[in-house]
Formats: sequence, C-alpha cells, structure tokens
Amino acid sequence: MKSARLYISLKPDILDPQGKTVHHALETLGFDAVASCRVGKYIELAFPDLPTEEITRRVGEMCERLLVNPVMETWRVEVVEE
Amino acid sequence: MKSARLYISLKPDILDPQGKTVHHALETLGFDAVASCRVGKYIELAFPDLPTEEITRRVGEMCERLLVNPVMETWRVEVVEE
Repeated sequence: MKSARLYISLKPDILDPQGKTVHHALETLGFDAVASCRVGKYIELAFPDLPTEEITRRVGEMCERLLVNPVMETWRVEVVEE
Repeated sequence: MKSARLYISLKPDILDPQGKTVHHALETLGFDAVASCRVGKYIELAFPDLPTEEITRRVGEMCERLLVNPVMETWRVEVVEE
C-alpha cells in the first residue's frame, strides 16, 4: 500500500482569516516568536501498489477536478510507502 | 526565516465523515483506485531564525496547548528553511 500526502494551502496573496485567528490565539498564549500562520488542508489518500509517478499523476488530476480551487489555492503531493 | 510545517490528522480509529465524503466524490468522478481518504489540517508557521530543535520544541508546546486535540488527533512537524 502506498499513501499520497496532499498538502493544500492558500496562495500567499489570499487573506487567511483562520490563520490570523490561530496566530492571535498563539500570541495570547505567549508564543510571540511566530511571524505568521497559515492554515491549509492535509489529505491522505491510500493507493494499492501503483508506481509512484502514476499515483502523482492521478492525484494531480484529482486536484484539478475536485480537491483544489486553482484561483485561491496551491498544492503539493508526496507519495510514501506505508 | 524558517517555516514549521505542521500536519494534524485524525487517529486511525476515529471516524472521518469529511474524508468519506471526499472519497465518495472521487469514486463518482471515476477515481476508483483510492482505497481510503482521510482529511486533516496543515498549518504553516513562520519563525525568525531560531535553531530547528527550538522551533520543534515550541511547536510541540503549541500543539499541546492549542492546536491539537490529543484524544482524536495526531501530529507531526517538519522545519524547513525558506
């Protein structure tokens, strides 16, 4: 079994109110070294043993067709053996 | 500047309705090779140039105090140079 780890984050120029809220909460707790905080999504997809390139290709297609909003979000994927 | 990438996922034995919904949507689109799908959170925290071990330690403390629900979630962190 292989696992595709997909990380989706907002583009840098898109406002992130959820990230701002978390950042503020961290500061309130005394964590004042944090310069910025952005919140995104993390999706783990389990695949049977296909070649890594094939999994990467399919996940790319899933991102285009369903998982990612290309106007606001960017993504990256890594495939790991489980 | 360094960036701490924090990945938060549900523990394997916790039900994930959001993941199930995404999985079903992917199947509907014809992506039937996916064995399972779990949805988690991805948080990027920017730090000034502290040592990597110090950033890892602080992020661990943030997870304990705010970011992670230890009953339902697990987390891992990686620190990268930006």
